[in-house]
Amino acid sequence: MRDVAIIGVGDTKFGELWEHSIRDIGMQAGLSAVSDANIAGEQIEALYIGNMAAGSLIEQEHLGALVSDYSGLSALHIPAVRIEAAGASGGMALREGYIAVASGMHDIVMVAGAEKMTDVTDEEIPTIQMAGGDQQWEGISGSTMASLFAMMARRHMHEYGTTRENIASVPVKNHKNGAMNPNAQYQKGITMDTVLKSPMVADPLGVFDCAPISDGAAAVILAPLDIAKKYSEQPIKIVASAAATDTLALQHRESLTRIDSIKVASRNAYKTAGIGPKEIDVAEVHDSYSIAEIISIEDLGFFEKGKGGPATLEGMTEINGVVSVNTSGGLKARGDPMGATGVAQAVEIARQLRGKGEKRQVNNAEYGLSLNMGGTGGTSVVHIYRRL
Amino acid sequence: MRDVAIIGVGDTKFGELWEHSIRDIGMQAGLSAVSDANIAGEQIEALYIGNMAAGSLIEQEHLGALVSDYSGLSALHIPAVRIEAAGASGGMALREGYIAVASGMHDIVMVAGAEKMTDVTDEEIPTIQMAGGDQQWEGISGSTMASLFAMMARRHMHEYGTTRENIASVPVKNHKNGAMNPNAQYQKGITMDTVLKSPMVADPLGVFDCAPISDGAAAVILAPLDIAKKYSEQPIKIVASAAATDTLALQHRESLTRIDSIKVASRNAYKTAGIGPKEIDVAEVHDSYSIAEIISIEDLGFFEKGKGGPATLEGMTEINGVVSVNTSGGLKARGDPMGATGVAQAVEIARQLRGKGEKRQVNNAEYGLSLNMGGTGGTSVVHIYRRL
Repeated sequence: MRDVAIIGVGDTKFGELWEHSIRDIGMQAGLSAVSDANIAGEQIEALYIGNMAAGSLIEQEHLGALVSDYSGLSALHIPAVRIEAAGASGGMALREGYIAVASGMHDIVMVAGAEKMTDVTDEEIPTIQMAGGDQQWEGISGSTMASLFAMMARRHMHEYGTTRENIASVPVKNHKNGAMNPNAQYQKGITMDTVLKSPMVADPLGVFDCAPISDGAAAVILAPLDIAKKYSEQPIKIVASAAATDTLALQHRESLTRIDSIKVASRNAYKTAGIGPKEIDVAEVHDSYSIAEIISIEDLGFFEKGKGGPATLEGMTEINGVVSVNTSGGLKARGDPMGATGVAQAVEIARQLRGKGEKRQVNNAEYGLSLNMGGTGGTSVVHIYRRL
Repeated sequence: MRDVAIIGVGDTKFGELWEHSIRDIGMQAGLSAVSDANIAGEQIEALYIGNMAAGSLIEQEHLGALVSDYSGLSALHIPAVRIEAAGASGGMALREGYIAVASGMHDIVMVAGAEKMTDVTDEEIPTIQMAGGDQQWEGISGSTMASLFAMMARRHMHEYGTTRENIASVPVKNHKNGAMNPNAQYQKGITMDTVLKSPMVADPLGVFDCAPISDGAAAVILAPLDIAKKYSEQPIKIVASAAATDTLALQHRESLTRIDSIKVASRNAYKTAGIGPKEIDVAEVHDSYSIAEIISIEDLGFFEKGKGGPATLEGMTEINGVVSVNTSGGLKARGDPMGATGVAQAVEIARQLRGKGEKRQVNNAEYGLSLNMGGTGGTSVVHIYRRL
């Protein structure tokens, strides 16, 4: 397999983009990545599109051909495909695009993620989100994603003494970071008190523990490492791409406080990269719910099991802490347009490793990691990146 | 890139499978392929699942993890992903699985396609099918897939003198073939008269020109060619895998009687395989509507443009004709569970090249081809296979 690098990145602002269709935002992110990569659109040989639920959200499937079409590439008739793994669709699209370049099948590939969530009513969203869980075992009994993560939170508190304040420190940090990201949905800091007193969604999680409903798109351009320098002054090497699955339903797992798909995917990624968690300087992880970030930083090996909460409260995951986690603002503050999220994570890591993190730049970041998750961890996708 | 072979195939009966969930049929096809490949399920390193619209049909996305889970593979935490390209989802899943093995990322990979279409009312189906077309330009004005293919048919009649009987000869042939396929949805021959007098769907196409609504699943096991003989006495080599796109909306194309994604994908596939259309002995093509088969056999190069209709009526695409087309019964008689179709095509070709086509066996078949299409040709995926 050939080495693969990111040679260009682009994204849209995340938020309630009433004035833009999924076509608009997909194109906007794609064009911005093409321009960043210093390529012509005609050089793109294949498209990999991460999207979770456009069929349910806007009655439109076939987003591979759609993005090719609306990007003006239809005359080139390039292969294009949509990749879906619930909330991990973007990360999985990156992985499939990576494999396509690594294999030698294609040289220059665009991976884009896009989702338009605000075209349906808020009442429809929980069912669409639960399509990433197990409808037959969980959805049917009225479980929502928030309720499942709430159970994980309660059990984590019970087993490890994690406090409500520990958990609430995740959104406080992520809003602080999002305030420094001009493309974040929420660019405003919040206090611990705001989180603790926010309206309850599923005990113990309040509104401020839950990532918002978002529209948005992000894109990266991949190329074989040996030609990457031809296009980009700062190509970012993808040193590992790993994915793993677990049971869809939480109830079928051995533990509520551990996500095995994260453990397996990250273990495999570290092995391929030849490094361990201690080498990671900056990480984007899947804080769809605040507790998810705590479990993630434990199962990624950044902190011992049970210590993720205190570590966050003590500032160890702040920018330039032990490891800088969710410098973009994470899903909570940057926003979570489901299929776009995994690609947006790669965009943020590439910016950090290029030293283009602006006000949120991590000092001397060499290794980055992204963890994109589907459902309660039915799928996890981990990528490790290195500055060259 | 490494050479890749199919070492096992499996499928379910296609039809109205009221008594089975998508989990059941996915497992049934998968287990049958595993058994055919003489492997243990634990040897599977990754899953690629072709599915078009489970989000809309059964409110369930995340089918990669779901199939892994319900196949009892969750304890192995293998990577699993759903691939979607509308009606070409199965063929595209085969292509992504092929790339994963060719790259060296994985050795033994299962590609499965599954769709459960009968859990919604018949009234909901046209909208879900149109999610493979262009909702913004076509669906919004009330176009259905049938109406779009009807326009292609009318224009083909106008430009090339194709007759209603030419078009109707497609379902007549495919029902004849389906009658010899024990897993086909319709195992009954029909007459030309049945087609011509069938209730009108969209002029000139009647009910018997349209593939049915189906449940079903199919699976293939892929392995590097150099170890394929270890498992299978008759591995089938995939000699080319190509995909191409076109505009989603018919109205944006230069011609209504040509599908450029088929032309580009097949041209690229022939080039990789080092053969031309004349070498193909057996082909499964995408007869979602009868006219689609006629356009396909022209754009694949089997017959000159405008000659596909007469060729079919004259029996040139019957079993042991010039090229044996849709020996399985095609989408019309075998059934069309959308995401399963492309994988079922590969299953049929593998059976033919192994000489396991039973009553519908093509004499001495060496080269096979499958063409799986999404929408009106927004995506086409072509694979070429060779007997070893």
